[in-house]
Amino acid sequence: MSSWTTWFAEQRAAREDAGLQRTLRPRAVDEDVIDLANNDYLGLSCDPAVRRAAAGAALRWGAGAGASRLVTGTTALHAELERELAEFTGREAALVFSTGYHANLSAVTALANKQSLIVSDAHVHASLIDAARLSRAAIEVVPHNDVAAVRTALGAAGGRRALVLTESVFSVLGDAAPLADLAAVCAEHDALLVVDEAHGLGVVGDGGRGSVHAQGMADHPHVVMTATLSKSLGAMGGAVLGSAVLVDHLVNRARPFIFDTGLAPAPTAAALAALRCLREHPARPSGIHERGAELADRLGVPRSAGAVLSVPMPSPQVAVAAQAAALAAGVRVGCFRPPSVPDGISRLRITTHAGLDDARWEHSVDALVRVVKEHRRWP
Amino acid sequence: MSSWTTWFAEQRAAREDAGLQRTLRPRAVDEDVIDLANNDYLGLSCDPAVRRAAAGAALRWGAGAGASRLVTGTTALHAELERELAEFTGREAALVFSTGYHANLSAVTALANKQSLIVSDAHVHASLIDAARLSRAAIEVVPHNDVAAVRTALGAAGGRRALVLTESVFSVLGDAAPLADLAAVCAEHDALLVVDEAHGLGVVGDGGRGSVHAQGMADHPHVVMTATLSKSLGAMGGAVLGSAVLVDHLVNRARPFIFDTGLAPAPTAAALAALRCLREHPARPSGIHERGAELADRLGVPRSAGAVLSVPMPSPQVAVAAQAAALAAGVRVGCFRPPSVPDGISRLRITTHAGLDDARWEHSVDALVRVVKEHRRWP
Ligand SMILES: Cc1ncc(COP(=O)(O)O)c(C=O)c1O
Ligand SMILES: Cc1ncc(COP(=O)(O)O)c(C=O)c1O
Repeated sequence: MSSWTTWFAEQRAAREDAGLQRTLRPRAVDEDVIDLANNDYLGLSCDPAVRRAAAGAALRWGAGAGASRLVTGTTALHAELERELAEFTGREAALVFSTGYHANLSAVTALANKQSLIVSDAHVHASLIDAARLSRAAIEVVPHNDVAAVRTALGAAGGRRALVLTESVFSVLGDAAPLADLAAVCAEHDALLVVDEAHGLGVVGDGGRGSVHAQGMADHPHVVMTATLSKSLGAMGGAVLGSAVLVDHLVNRARPFIFDTGLAPAPTAAALAALRCLREHPARPSGIHERGAELADRLGVPRSAGAVLSVPMPSPQVAVAAQAAALAAGVRVGCFRPPSVPDGISRLRITTHAGLDDARWEHSVDALVRVVKEHRRWP
Repeated sequence: MSSWTTWFAEQRAAREDAGLQRTLRPRAVDEDVIDLANNDYLGLSCDPAVRRAAAGAALRWGAGAGASRLVTGTTALHAELERELAEFTGREAALVFSTGYHANLSAVTALANKQSLIVSDAHVHASLIDAARLSRAAIEVVPHNDVAAVRTALGAAGGRRALVLTESVFSVLGDAAPLADLAAVCAEHDALLVVDEAHGLGVVGDGGRGSVHAQGMADHPHVVMTATLSKSLGAMGGAVLGSAVLVDHLVNRARPFIFDTGLAPAPTAAALAALRCLREHPARPSGIHERGAELADRLGVPRSAGAVLSVPMPSPQVAVAAQAAALAAGVRVGCFRPPSVPDGISRLRITTHAGLDDARWEHSVDALVRVVKEHRRWP
């Protein structure tokens, strides 16, 4: 027996003791559950036009892109999606990646290096944290949403190229970043603000154009936007949106773009169809906010800037029990425990969905209010 | 104008001067080109059963997985694919990722940390290099395929947990790693050998089971196998194959697994269908080797251990010209220039395809022999 087997076993035992062991639970295609754990906020993943677009692309183009986007993995579908994403968000250009994770890794590592400074909000997503580490830049983590701290950090940059990393709607707590203030500070110091709109696109602003657009910063020269195609657009993949020279730079320098097979035709076409659906139904995202406000108020938690409600629980074990109780009542919610929370607090993560019919939504609200009440009382 | 715009422009000018500027060229669905640039070595991306499986999954399951595999993004499809991948390669368990890049990032970062030592072959893929950097382990790069250097490096590990990184078939040069010797050295030092089978799976060994299986090491406790679903399987995604305790460890600790939306249903089902196709036609991979040997001999370059032929060119500019000449003759090949080559030498990268009909294959061979002859003569 190798020492590795012992090490794996020790680590697992420690996780089990702390209530932090996780296992995968495959779901069936016909399960009868209301899923408020996923990020498919508009229900577009299962929209008939989106499904058909994905299926049609697989039949027409084949199952895979075949190679890196730079070799022969760029199809006309990718180009079309990039054009329409840029147009929708008001940005000059867009570049599509296999995942949102790849988009963040690419943007940050192509813009920063050993000589750079990265100022990172304390709550940013793992993909941005990994991106910062991978860039080998000096990293300064600032308190969550603290503009003054960002200003101080940039003031000490001393001629280094600097990036500031944030999210428009934070993925676990669901709160918003002070984007306009951050962009102003960045412009002042000639730093770039990288805004991850994973949970903003399709959710925030006019027709779901995202927070950068909503704040009138679509053509802000110091704002780089990243996004995923895997959440409100219901597909898979990521994007970076910004100037054409930025996109040219990424195409030539971003290793997780250059050395990765292109996004497959089916998710590419699905994201495009979802985007078109969103444009045809610009009022859809408002359902997310109306329902979110109702549920937040009934649960007694802060309203979300997007679709993500965060419900703190007394312990990881109680969070797991509450999740199980909700599932028993027909509602799946997320249970986020360390290391998946920015503040060490285990919680339920509930997403509000605009696509559900009223009866299912009301059933969910009632069930969740009951479950949360019961479990917060737990010692 | 910000200093960033100037910086982008300067970098682009430098690339143009060096013949290293790249642009994306979207391909049309009906282009009439023989594509020997992609990694779809068995033609499975366009196999009717594979296309239909991808389309059917999108219709049945929707366009996306909706969330992280750990939240609600694991479908029965993922579980089925993992079971069959493990069975096919003879390994105890498998875990599927969104990309091969994510698989490598995950395996290495979950196994190594600041206290570890990573011994990396000088020619490994960008995803393994990034993975090693991201892990924050001490990294020792050893000369290509140098087992003695690996032994020396491990001998100096001094109690640190150590990983050795290699590929079964190297992605650009197409040569093989001395896997059995490396595994023996790793076992001696209780290090783990991470073998990237991106270009081995579906290509090497009995029915395409890969090099680890071919060398009788499917159950070797010191061998971790990674793979992609985006090459011979014609889809998209990645996998790590090893012991069940390793997979449990990755599920709980690998950030690019935990914090990434699951692989979409269409590519998941496509990879599964491709794998089944491969099992039904175990002789298919042999076509890769027969054709590869023929083409290598006619071009006067070393035969490949897999499907990748490397044809060195005198300069990046000549490599680009040769690629264009091949395309004019109806054959697309890859043109790899720095930083996409391990040795700084620009080259054509030609992949041998078992799926092409004989007439198209013979046309390709004749065209490539002519083009290469002409361009190598270039001053
Ligand atoms: C804020 C944020 N950024 C990036 C990602 C990564 O996106 P993807 O799942 O498409 O890789 C996620 C979620 O997974 C996210 O929540
Ligand atoms: C050796 C090797 N490993 C990993 C990868 C990454 O795989 P993927 O394209 O599925 O991300 C590639 C190619 O892209 C590769 O050639």
